[in-house]
Amino acid sequence: MTVKAYGAHAADQPLQSLDIARRAPGAHDVQIDIAFCGVCHSDLHTVRSEWAGTLYPCVPGHEIVGRVSAVGAHVAGFAIGDLVGVGCMVDSCRHCADCADGLENYCDGMVGTYNGATADAPGHTLGGYSERIVVDERYVLRVRHPEQQLAAVAPLLCAGITTWSPLRHWGAGPGKTVGVVGIGGLGHMGIKLARALGAHVVAFTTSESKRQAAEALGAHEVIVSRDADAMAAQAQKLDLIVNTVAAPHDLDAFLNLLKRDGTMVLVGAPATPHPSPQVFNLITKRRAIAGSMIGGIAETQEMLDFCAEHGIVADIEMIRADEINAAYERMLQGDVKYRFVIDNATLAA
Amino acid sequence: MTVKAYGAHAADQPLQSLDIARRAPGAHDVQIDIAFCGVCHSDLHTVRSEWAGTLYPCVPGHEIVGRVSAVGAHVAGFAIGDLVGVGCMVDSCRHCADCADGLENYCDGMVGTYNGATADAPGHTLGGYSERIVVDERYVLRVRHPEQQLAAVAPLLCAGITTWSPLRHWGAGPGKTVGVVGIGGLGHMGIKLARALGAHVVAFTTSESKRQAAEALGAHEVIVSRDADAMAAQAQKLDLIVNTVAAPHDLDAFLNLLKRDGTMVLVGAPATPHPSPQVFNLITKRRAIAGSMIGGIAETQEMLDFCAEHGIVADIEMIRADEINAAYERMLQGDVKYRFVIDNATLAA
Ligand SMILES: [Zn+2]
Ligand SMILES: [Zn+2]
Ligand SMILES: [Zn+2]
Ligand SMILES: [Zn+2]
Repeated sequence: MTVKAYGAHAADQPLQSLDIARRAPGAHDVQIDIAFCGVCHSDLHTVRSEWAGTLYPCVPGHEIVGRVSAVGAHVAGFAIGDLVGVGCMVDSCRHCADCADGLENYCDGMVGTYNGATADAPGHTLGGYSERIVVDERYVLRVRHPEQQLAAVAPLLCAGITTWSPLRHWGAGPGKTVGVVGIGGLGHMGIKLARALGAHVVAFTTSESKRQAAEALGAHEVIVSRDADAMAAQAQKLDLIVNTVAAPHDLDAFLNLLKRDGTMVLVGAPATPHPSPQVFNLITKRRAIAGSMIGGIAETQEMLDFCAEHGIVADIEMIRADEINAAYERMLQGDVKYRFVIDNATLAA
Repeated sequence: MTVKAYGAHAADQPLQSLDIARRAPGAHDVQIDIAFCGVCHSDLHTVRSEWAGTLYPCVPGHEIVGRVSAVGAHVAGFAIGDLVGVGCMVDSCRHCADCADGLENYCDGMVGTYNGATADAPGHTLGGYSERIVVDERYVLRVRHPEQQLAAVAPLLCAGITTWSPLRHWGAGPGKTVGVVGIGGLGHMGIKLARALGAHVVAFTTSESKRQAAEALGAHEVIVSRDADAMAAQAQKLDLIVNTVAAPHDLDAFLNLLKRDGTMVLVGAPATPHPSPQVFNLITKRRAIAGSMIGGIAETQEMLDFCAEHGIVADIEMIRADEINAAYERMLQGDVKYRFVIDNATLAA
């Protein structure tokens, strides 16, 4: 079937309306009529081929929510009409240790929701800036939020799980002090989730102007990272830092805030390397710098259920599909609180 | 009391024979007649003031073994004649979380065995290149090896515990594959200890000429890190890497050998930073780079007891005290298998 989408034909071209093909649902497939799709920095990097290997036409989008409109004969977990989500992956090898552990996000055979390998036309996956998507039920998530929150649920599928996974893996919760560096699409979710998990949350921003917003998101403390005295007062206070800033920056300033055995988890990869961190700051307190990439299917469902239970959604600004190119420019300026979400009903316009 | 020692009066002077004062043993002190002292790279860095803050006269040495020659009235754990050791620290604050957890090595009040703060003359601690030392019993270790192995036990007090602590903390043992990078004073102990702990041990060296030696130390596999094919064959094979190389080098080449959730532990701090590691290599497999510094008193005793039980000592080359300056030059060339140990009886010569 042919559906409307928004995407680009080349790295140097703006996104525009496209017609794309979707496969008929197979026995294990769920067909989803997409209601909303969040706009992630990865979308922009990929569509502009800022990372290697973008295939065109490129239709981004991996923060997908919508309603099931058809299911294959063997689909057991979903029925027509269900509210569902799809995140950053639509397939994986299904038999490696990562897949067995429910961490398909680390599988070498993980297939991204866009720009991934597929037998479907045109030979690579096309994402959520589209009216409809067909996904094996293993990679479909159930959404238990009220339908009126659906648009604001979309960013949970990438920004939410990307911060949830390290918070859970490194034990954020009561009695722990968690730093969140950067208050953007990822960081604003990190603050909300760490707070709801029961941690003491310290938000770090370069801008005094974000103090009130960070407090409103749930931060117990807000530190302007350019304020040397405020930073010094946090020395050895943090059990865990989730660092959402992908731009190259001084990691040592944050490493020094970790307690003994503390970990700073980087969830964004900079285009050019960070200044090399001082090994001394790791050695003297047995600290670690780690990385984390999105999350597995099981923990994504866990996160969605936790958010539904705690009334957590993203803070969003809704846009029409034809506003996406302008939205990218604003996103590059940091001019969004905190996630753009496309109203996919506007694709047909 | 006055005892013979070997040390330097300034950063640019060679070590020479000195007379130093030792305090009379207090109620909780153990007086140790030093039999042997290992020669650590830290000794050289400190005595030459290559790190900030060296105080002179400087008497290095923190791989100390000997026999108890006096004990204070309240000493409970040691008696005259006992074989004992002293490692990298002789005091700490004793009340912080690190001290309470038996990780005095991470205490902000940790007092190094040399160049540390003390009320004793001359106002800073003087180390094991000396005939005798007086240490609070809390920081004295029991040596259960046969006396004829005593010289080769000395390096366990720094090189041994520095590799033991990360191996234990990150779970080296049966079913785990552990890489050891660098086959020097630290690395040769890392290989022996990882093997004895039951791990599958992969040694990494820049030199094909070290292959047989590494196998003799206990490595199951030896990889020449300049051999790209051999390195590629180890991709995602390792649970843990203990990286003992302090010289700046490409960390990414080793990060890529870690499985998902693997950790590379750095135990040496380079004088100039390593090339900045690729965050991408951390994120894609939730890998970590951590640091570790020596070890606590309890785990040092655990390591010594483990080594006594398993017949593990360092491979050493014995020197006279007046050979120390020449030994430093050879150490800088990597020309030692694998640790120099001073025969402290030669201090009186
Ligand atoms: Zn994303
Ligand atoms: Zn897999
Ligand atoms: Zn040492
Ligand atoms: Zn302490």
